Amino acid sequence: MTLRSLEQETLVLNGATIETLRTPCLLLDQRRLSTNIAGMRARLDRLGVGFRPHLKTAKSIDVARLAMTSPSGPITVSTLREAEYFADHGVTDMIYGVGMAPAKLEPVSAIRARNVDLAVVLDSIEQADALAAHCRQQGEAIPALIEVDADGRRSGVSPTDPGLLLAIARQLTSGAELRGVLVHAGASYDLNRPDDLMIAADSERDAALVAARTLVGAGFPCPVVSVGSTPTARFTRDLDGITEVRAGAFMFGDLCQVGIGSMAIDDLALSVLATVIGRNRSQGRTIIDAGWMALSRDRSTARQVVDLGYGMVCDLDGEPYADLIVADTNQEHGVAALRAGSSASLPDLAIGSRVRILPNHACATAAQHQAYRLLPAGPSAALAEWPRCSGW
Amino acid sequence: MTLRSLEQETLVLNGATIETLRTPCLLLDQRRLSTNIAGMRARLDRLGVGFRPHLKTAKSIDVARLAMTSPSGPITVSTLREAEYFADHGVTDMIYGVGMAPAKLEPVSAIRARNVDLAVVLDSIEQADALAAHCRQQGEAIPALIEVDADGRRSGVSPTDPGLLLAIARQLTSGAELRGVLVHAGASYDLNRPDDLMIAADSERDAALVAARTLVGAGFPCPVVSVGSTPTARFTRDLDGITEVRAGAFMFGDLCQVGIGSMAIDDLALSVLATVIGRNRSQGRTIIDAGWMALSRDRSTARQVVDLGYGMVCDLDGEPYADLIVADTNQEHGVAALRAGSSASLPDLAIGSRVRILPNHACATAAQHQAYRLLPAGPSAALAEWPRCSGW
Repeated sequence: MTLRSLEQETLVLNGATIETLRTPCLLLDQRRLSTNIAGMRARLDRLGVGFRPHLKTAKSIDVARLAMTSPSGPITVSTLREAEYFADHGVTDMIYGVGMAPAKLEPVSAIRARNVDLAVVLDSIEQADALAAHCRQQGEAIPALIEVDADGRRSGVSPTDPGLLLAIARQLTSGAELRGVLVHAGASYDLNRPDDLMIAADSERDAALVAARTLVGAGFPCPVVSVGSTPTARFTRDLDGITEVRAGAFMFGDLCQVGIGSMAIDDLALSVLATVIGRNRSQGRTIIDAGWMALSRDRSTARQVVDLGYGMVCDLDGEPYADLIVADTNQEHGVAALRAGSSASLPDLAIGSRVRILPNHACATAAQHQAYRLLPAGPSAALAEWPRCSGW
Repeated sequence: MTLRSLEQETLVLNGATIETLRTPCLLLDQRRLSTNIAGMRARLDRLGVGFRPHLKTAKSIDVARLAMTSPSGPITVSTLREAEYFADHGVTDMIYGVGMAPAKLEPVSAIRARNVDLAVVLDSIEQADALAAHCRQQGEAIPALIEVDADGRRSGVSPTDPGLLLAIARQLTSGAELRGVLVHAGASYDLNRPDDLMIAADSERDAALVAARTLVGAGFPCPVVSVGSTPTARFTRDLDGITEVRAGAFMFGDLCQVGIGSMAIDDLALSVLATVIGRNRSQGRTIIDAGWMALSRDRSTARQVVDLGYGMVCDLDGEPYADLIVADTNQEHGVAALRAGSSASLPDLAIGSRVRILPNHACATAAQHQAYRLLPAGPSAALAEWPRCSGW
């Protein structure tokens, strides 16, 4: 197996090469990562909107430093653990993008006491009440964004329910700071036609704008109008009135994004390096040492037009073998096989051969690993292992 | 919410109580764990067979010490990292139960150099050839078990292919030690009728016995005849000729095992503690802070008679709410809702309420966490956090 696309001398990672690294392990293609980030930043610059990268996928300060518009942020996080980790590394502008529970206010205040402008998210009067009471008790006005629902999928106040929106705003401002509104168009992940994705992006924007206008019209402040998902960020054409976009999955990309149409196979920066540990050619199976523990149980492509099992099997250059997918997994076993109905021939992968698996869902696959091993950006690039934070 | 089944004063875990622990986190019911282990050991004692617990689910020396028949083992592991971790904690008798790749022989030798009797598994002439060559070069006879296939599901030599079995044995013994045969009846996980499970257990046993007789009949040693899965270990009636059973998932149990019929809801020792962070009663949704990051993406019950989504929602005592499941997840959001067609009423869980989620698949859910928080076995029991090992 040759290594056509990379310089042989650059493959020494922490003393090991891509041929000798213990498998399974998580590879990150630094060149593609940088290209994906540069593309998104240029796109958002053209749209005249700020960028608050979501770090829930990467969970790495090294990736964050490539994505952030300044060393101190802004960023979006999905757990208090991420907030603490990024605060440890000098990030001071964060939104904790998951609905706030009262028991989380004490750790939020502890993080804010480190000169971090950490804002929380909520969508109910109960939460606003708890937050305002906590703020009055602590003598600090914690900033909060009201989550607005664009698609009925999960959380958020309906933009067509101004009464609830204003009631939350009133309750919130009895102690806390109303920072603005926040929308996530989660339903965009079910789409795959550019026209539909543009409509989803418009709906996400409009939900945010309607809510912001309701607040401002009633005399409330609304300095931040925040939207974001990778599919809508890719397909939006107009973000007039929006102040910032949160997106994160685009940095690595995955097969789910390819199925949506928001990324191409050649954009995908994340893969799992695996070794062939068994084969049964009569049954068309090649067994690899990347099972669901290394790939995750995520089957996002199962509901898309092309079901790619637990991932596409590629050679060490990242070139997919025709129709070869990880068809099934156990904890530490992956079963590589041709897709049903394929007329391709099964590649003859000997025991000990190495392959790379492109995952369904970068967030889920990366979460199974403690660190990234970097495929370097060029011959002179530093070789590195980038740790991830985890837990809550 | 009361805590009927546990003494209130025993709930202080590392200074936090089940009411104040940061969520989501992984709870382990020590009483159920101990009962499950005692039950399996008594059962295997009655069957007159040895027990080599599989630690791939628990990945914890504390759990291992409850399950092992001696402080030094024997155990089964699924990764080299587990082998290193358990060796660090004094375990000296292990089978690395996943097919061996040539590049893994060097770390295997390094672990064995620490006076650990670590055996490997293989099912091909190529692997036997690589192992024997490594052994001759190292001047040590590494023990190996030949994996035998009971159900055509994944790996292993067919027991009806004595030619291949003997060819592997010959190649292997040109440098390595033939330790025996090993079978895992993975297809038992697709069953749910006791009669079928007994047949699967018999098939697993018979595959091992046929292969062992082939080897012994040709003059090869076969001291170990190893079988194991939680469903077959629960339903087997006769293991005459088998020397040891490997099983591990039974220690914690999960909803998949309940669907199979190999465990009951009241046996389940593992749950995820979560907090309500949102609700939308008009749409029948309660949002909790346990998404797929805390529960895993595993959907094992989806292919069973009763699909329980991403898990059953219980109160703090572990009592399930009628028909309430985690119907959908995002990374840090779980959507609790009634099962389709349910006539139960949605419990009124306020923001900040705490619930426990029984998972589909204990191995996958535990893998999302770095440690167990123990629900103690009794008022005087030590309170503890048990770490897990992870990675490869």
